[in-house]
Formats: sequence, C-alpha cells, structure tokens
Amino acid sequence: MEKLFNIMELLGIIAFTISGAMVGIEKKMDLFGVMFLGITTAFGGGIIRDIMLGNLPPAMFESHRNIEIAAGTALLVFIIGYLTREYYSRHLDMIETINNVFDAVGLGIFTTTGIQIAINTGYGYNKFLLVCLGMITGVGGGLLRDIIAARTPVIFAKHIYAVASIVGGMSYLWFLDIDFQQSSAMTLSILVTFIIRILSTVKKWNLPRIN
Amino acid sequence: MEKLFNIMELLGIIAFTISGAMVGIEKKMDLFGVMFLGITTAFGGGIIRDIMLGNLPPAMFESHRNIEIAAGTALLVFIIGYLTREYYSRHLDMIETINNVFDAVGLGIFTTTGIQIAINTGYGYNKFLLVCLGMITGVGGGLLRDIIAARTPVIFAKHIYAVASIVGGMSYLWFLDIDFQQSSAMTLSILVTFIIRILSTVKKWNLPRIN
Amino acid sequence: MEKLFNIMELLGIIAFTISGAMVGIEKKMDLFGVMFLGITTAFGGGIIRDIMLGNLPPAMFESHRNIEIAAGTALLVFIIGYLTREYYSRHLDMIETINNVFDAVGLGIFTTTGIQIAINTGYGYNKFLLVCLGMITGVGGGLLRDIIAARTPVIFAKHIYAVASIVGGMSYLWFLDIDFQQSSAMTLSILVTFIIRILSTVKKWNLPRIN
Repeated sequence: MEKLFNIMELLGIIAFTISGAMVGIEKKMDLFGVMFLGITTAFGGGIIRDIMLGNLPPAMFESHRNIEIAAGTALLVFIIGYLTREYYSRHLDMIETINNVFDAVGLGIFTTTGIQIAINTGYGYNKFLLVCLGMITGVGGGLLRDIIAARTPVIFAKHIYAVASIVGGMSYLWFLDIDFQQSSAMTLSILVTFIIRILSTVKKWNLPRIN
Repeated sequence: MEKLFNIMELLGIIAFTISGAMVGIEKKMDLFGVMFLGITTAFGGGIIRDIMLGNLPPAMFESHRNIEIAAGTALLVFIIGYLTREYYSRHLDMIETINNVFDAVGLGIFTTTGIQIAINTGYGYNKFLLVCLGMITGVGGGLLRDIIAARTPVIFAKHIYAVASIVGGMSYLWFLDIDFQQSSAMTLSILVTFIIRILSTVKKWNLPRIN
Repeated sequence: MEKLFNIMELLGIIAFTISGAMVGIEKKMDLFGVMFLGITTAFGGGIIRDIMLGNLPPAMFESHRNIEIAAGTALLVFIIGYLTREYYSRHLDMIETINNVFDAVGLGIFTTTGIQIAINTGYGYNKFLLVCLGMITGVGGGLLRDIIAARTPVIFAKHIYAVASIVGGMSYLWFLDIDFQQSSAMTLSILVTFIIRILSTVKKWNLPRIN
C-alpha cells in the first residue's frame, strides 16, 4: 500500500513537472526558469497543503529524491523541446492538448494523495477539511504555475477544473466508506477526477456565465 | 460577547463575499469562478492570519457553516447579477460604488475581529503584532481577490486603504485600553475604519505621489 | 558573532527596502505603496522562510525596530525620489543599475542569514533544506515585490539570479565545513552571491533558452 502511494505520488510529480516545464518553454523562459516552473508546479500544491496542516517544514524538503526526479524530468522536457523546436512552434495546439492530459493526471493523483496525507496526519474525522485539502493539493501547483507565468489561471479559464478535483475527492472518501480496498479507492478516484477533466475539455462543458 | 463576535464575523464574511463575487461577475467568470472568488475574498485574510499565528489548520476548516453561508451568498449575487444583467452593464459606476461600501464594511469588521483573535491566541502583549495582524486579516482577502482577478490591487490603487485598517486597529486597542466594554470598542473601531475608507473615497483623499 | 549577524541582517533589510521602494516609485505608487513595497521586499523572504520552518509568528513581528528602520529608509527613498524627480525620469537606466546593486547586496546577505537561521532552528543536518531555505529567503522578497508591482519577476527575466543564491548558499555550508570562522564564512559567501550576480549582469551571462 505504502508502495502504491509512493508510485502514485511520483507519477503525479512527473506529470505536473512536465506540464509546468512545457508552460515555461511556451513562455520563452531560460533553462532555470523552465526547471523552476516545473518543480513549482509539482510541489506547490503539496507545500500549501503542508502549511495548512502545520506539517512544517513541508515534506518535500525531507528528501532530495523527488526533487531530483522533477529536476531531471524538467531538464528532459527542455532538451526535447530544444530538439523539436521547429516542430514545436507549428503545433502549439497539439502541445497544449498533451499538456492538458498531463495536467489532468497530476490533478487526479494529487487530489487523492493530498486527502490520504491529511487522513494520515489525523484529520480523518473532518471530511469537509479533507476534500478542501485534496482540492488545494491538486489545484495549488497549477495555480502557482499560472500566476508565476502570468497566464490566466487554468482554474478559471477552463471548464470544470476545481469541480473535477472536488468530485474526485468526494468519490475517494465514498469508496473508503463503502469499504473498498485503499488501493482500489485510490485508483478509482484518480480516474474519476481524470475522466471528468478530460470529458469536460473534449465536450467543452461549461458552467453558466453572465455575458 | 461571544455572540456579538460571531455576528460581526458573519457580517464581514457576507460583505466580502459580495464584493468578491461582484468582481468575479465583472471579470466574466463562470459560476464556479464567481463563487471561488467570493469565498477567497471572505476567508483569505483569515487564512493568512491563522498561518502567521500558527493556528493550523486555519479556523475556517473547522466548520462548514460559514463557508456554506458564503457559498449561498455568492450564488445569490450570481443570480441577481444574471437577472439584472441588462441593468448591470449600463451602471458599472454604481455597481462599483456598492462594491466599495461592502468592501469597507468587510475591511472594518475583519480588522477588529482579526485583532481579537490574535489576543485570544495569547499575543495581547505585543500591540505591534496585533495591529499588523488586524491589517493582514482586513486587507488579505481583497489582495488575493485582486491578484487572482488580475486587477490592480485596491490596496495600491485606492486612496487610504491599509491606512484605514491600521488606524481602525489602533483605535480598537485604544478603546480597550481606556476600559470601554469590548462590544463598544468593537463597534466603534469598525466604524472608525469604515468611515475613514468611505470619507477618503468620497473626498478623493490622496497620499503624495511622485509624477 | 551575534552582533555581526544583526548588522548583516540590518544591511540586507536596508538594501532590499531601497530596491523595493525604487520599484514603487518607478510604478508611480503613492507614499504608502512605496513604503509597503519596500517593507514587503525587505521582510517577504524571511516571512516565507519562517512559515516553512514553522517559526510562527514570523520573527519580524517580534520587534518594531527593524520595521521602523525599513519604514524610515523607504520614506527617505521617497523624499530623495521627489527631490530628484526631474533627474530621475531622464536616467532610468542608471537608476535601474543602482537598484540592481542594492538587490544583489540583499540577495547575498539574506541567502546566508536565512541558512544560519535554519541552522539555529535545528535543521543543520539537512543541507538540502538549508540551501533551499537560503534561496527562498534571498529570492522571496524580490519575487513578492515583482508580483505585487506586476513586473516580470526578476528571477526569470534576469541572468543567473536564483542560481547565484544557490551557489552562495552552498559556499557558506562549504566554508563552515572546512572550519572557517563563522564571521569569515558569512562574509565570503555573501561576496560569492554578490559577485556572481553582478558579473552575470555586467557580462550578460545567459542560461540557454529555446527560441
């Protein structure tokens, strides 16, 4: 179980790092900027969650390993971006789509792992707090990425973003409640968030708006 | 006393939610964006204060009630905004004025309640910290609102904003010092902040600036 | 030793306050805005560091003295800016250069003092955390300054910024490791950060970028 959790977290870190690094390249940042933005996207949500929980210093500083993996991932994205730069500039739409998928994977994973960490810290009795912290963990990194890169935060511009995280988080608590195994609950709730995000992008679902 | 405090806090939450939701509508955000911005404006200052005080997790996560009220308020603002949308777009100045009044109510209430919470947490001896935390509680939500909505933060664009909060906060400590009842001290200091804010808007008071 | 540390911290506060206040004047902020931006630049990095370390409330609220000095410094910058306003607008390049030097002084000092504070708090065994916290302390104030002033954060726009802080921080730990006196280690590592920053500006060193 511990193991599945670590693998999931690692996948989330890699997915968000890729998404952040791609935004950095799009914004013509230099190598450091691309790596910084990738790492911030990957760890920002978790840092905000740990601050909220009073888990200080934040867990990410406990070990190098995850940051090294994120740094390596961002470097790789930069190199691939460099090698394919011709192709890159002519296919921005496709790049954006790929980025969206990685972002949705990270959103799903971090929502669920964020809730699990809050449960481990002893807040299992407060479901409202759990869902909030899951959303903060899932959404925080992308929000920081967009503020730093001076993009309109995806959370407002895109269809059903935080809502996907909230629904995914509630589904995790519900799966645990009806006695699913933790590994199944985790996997299923990640899929819930991921599918809602992707469907809402593909189908262009929109929340009402006043024009 | 406890009761007055809770009523005041609730009024502050409602006032700031309205102000945040109105900015969201103005920025053409969708329903979720409007609700998120309203809730962030209402709770942002308190979250920053609780982080500074090490009161973690922040108090807002302890109970649903206040968030439910904020969510309901924001929804109501959205519906009213929708029903009056014709009128809305032709009277932006008036809308802005209404928004300003709610913002000033929230600023006054949160400055004073922020100080009281810091006193309750045991920092009554450090008046400098108290006034700072009052200002952070009062100003924080609006600052987050403006950063997220990509508006020039009101705190810089508008006449005498944080200054009103600082003076109001000092007046609260002073009223307590000269042995006013807590309820009177609270009410009066909220009025101080509110009146300074409104007067400085109406009279267009300005701080010096280098052109 | 304690004394050297306090003097260094004070110099860092003054340098960053000047840098923040100058950006405020450049952005046509009013007196309060200029003072607020100067103070935020001076204390922002330390507040973020203290939150990360769980040192709450942040050290800056413990005493007035440093804030009074920062406020006085910002006021002085405002007055000088006012008296030389004719000159100012015709020599923006020179102003920018002066600002850069103060920023580099602050970066060097805060990187090193940030690490020392983390060591004092008991994290001497985790060198990775120390270098991260040094960078956060050094870079945080300028990052907040640029976000609030809606400038492109210097950390991305300028050559070798956070990198200078990271190298300077590592050099501090290395100087301590090879048994330099703390005062020498501090002075030398501040010089390392400062020299890297200035050289990279003068020589226009750049990190690779994808065009």
